[in-house]
Amino acid sequence: MITVLSGGVGAARLLRVLRDARDARQLRAVVNVGDDLVMHGLTICPDLDTILYTLAGLNNDETGWGLAGESWRVMDELTALGGESWFRLGDRDLATHLYRSQRLAAGATKTLVSAELAASLGVAVTLLPVTDDPVSTVFETGLGRLSFQEYFVRHHHEIPVTRVEIVGATAARPTAVALAALNEAERIVIAPSNPVISIDPILQIPGIRDALARRRTDVVAVSPIVNGAALKGPADRLLGELGYDVSCVGVADFYGELVGTWVIDHADAGHADELTRRGFDVRVTTTIMGRADHDVALAAAVLT
Amino acid sequence: MITVLSGGVGAARLLRVLRDARDARQLRAVVNVGDDLVMHGLTICPDLDTILYTLAGLNNDETGWGLAGESWRVMDELTALGGESWFRLGDRDLATHLYRSQRLAAGATKTLVSAELAASLGVAVTLLPVTDDPVSTVFETGLGRLSFQEYFVRHHHEIPVTRVEIVGATAARPTAVALAALNEAERIVIAPSNPVISIDPILQIPGIRDALARRRTDVVAVSPIVNGAALKGPADRLLGELGYDVSCVGVADFYGELVGTWVIDHADAGHADELTRRGFDVRVTTTIMGRADHDVALAAAVLT
Repeated sequence: MITVLSGGVGAARLLRVLRDARDARQLRAVVNVGDDLVMHGLTICPDLDTILYTLAGLNNDETGWGLAGESWRVMDELTALGGESWFRLGDRDLATHLYRSQRLAAGATKTLVSAELAASLGVAVTLLPVTDDPVSTVFETGLGRLSFQEYFVRHHHEIPVTRVEIVGATAARPTAVALAALNEAERIVIAPSNPVISIDPILQIPGIRDALARRRTDVVAVSPIVNGAALKGPADRLLGELGYDVSCVGVADFYGELVGTWVIDHADAGHADELTRRGFDVRVTTTIMGRADHDVALAAAVLT
Repeated sequence: MITVLSGGVGAARLLRVLRDARDARQLRAVVNVGDDLVMHGLTICPDLDTILYTLAGLNNDETGWGLAGESWRVMDELTALGGESWFRLGDRDLATHLYRSQRLAAGATKTLVSAELAASLGVAVTLLPVTDDPVSTVFETGLGRLSFQEYFVRHHHEIPVTRVEIVGATAARPTAVALAALNEAERIVIAPSNPVISIDPILQIPGIRDALARRRTDVVAVSPIVNGAALKGPADRLLGELGYDVSCVGVADFYGELVGTWVIDHADAGHADELTRRGFDVRVTTTIMGRADHDVALAAAVLT
């Protein structure tokens, strides 16, 4: 069994690659909930939904976000009413949020709702929110403290960040199934998600960091920084603003001794010696997903 | 200024008739909130929305409920996910609920949200929820205690009711603007809404019944029972189950000394003497709305 610490798009793509290389039922994702939000009364879990939609084959691969064949009637009408519509929720996507909100109101946990949604959409990978307790990622910026979606969507992650705080993390409890997924995995994978705002909110939940540290030799991380830049999103910018080198070496420094093996891209082969000197095993392969031969190579580097 | 105690469809149609006969800005509706509900995390106010949509010209006059040109993408997807979809929410309608829920979460009252929605949709009639506090109409039935929408939508108001309770009514406060609308009105109209489940939840809010009793000679009620039957919904059935005559006389007994003048249909002219004997003024006219000459006659009977 393989357990993948997961944020949004990067994790969803890696999970798809690993799923195609191996039985889906052997895969578990322990997923970030730090950017979950309540909007219009609806509980929205962006990372869980991105993974769910991607594994269900419902995502829009062209735009890189949202659902294929999405429609926007509700948002159009909400805009006409003068409502807050900067956070775009498609009609199809809204059904997921209505379903989840209704089930949570009826007493279900996020973990149970994730299992129900996965079953409905035919997703055999097990999706496990790291915690069922509320946590929220907050950004300290020149504009004050911003919520995840204010920073990410409303301000297009274009303002300098001085500190990232995961509010509620120290009081949150990891779910028993998420902890078991880490303890029982033959291998723990850290997806090429944003280290600062996708993976760190998972690591800050009490017990998770220890669970990884105990398994260090079985922890494989895929660098989200290739050739000095993030493939998507502000990982490069945030690493720099928080004082890390914007490279796979900076990411390795960020995670420190939690990782045993680094998987880096051919473009970063020049950093391999530096990582080896820091005590990591290193595998150099193609980390950019989307081409069948590349995906097979990446899956092999991660799984073997 | 005219103030109308209002439920859903019957009130919406009467308000439209009065609005067409008089300046909309002289009309205020004090609206039932007993069938408001939270579903999928969204706060839904069926009576306020029915009035809003009808006065905005957005309602579907053919079906008698919902919005013209409505689409159902979200509900279709929610059904596919296995979610609760017996309470049908159209895409356009959902935008209203998202707007309201977001504004309530931001600290706005239902009264303020109603004013904002009316302004957005160009409705000049003032819509006033009777209270901003939570109240909910509950039905005691052979199937146990049912919420309004469980009784009304899920069970199609087809099960016998032994008692109706307005939970939260005694602790609720009427809004200052709703009370003022009653105290300052030259005439108070009770719309031909369901007496038991649309108007009584308004009357049970502390202070409302007294406000009407003080103004009895200025209170005009339009009978929702014509020729022994309700035009729409279970008003006839409920009156009978609760021990009232299923006629305009039974409705008059239900409201008692709150009403000064009864407006009844030609079909019920035979009851006029009985109402007069009970101390009411009586006007006989056409109470079935939808034909221009009938509407003018009804407006005249109510307003003059």
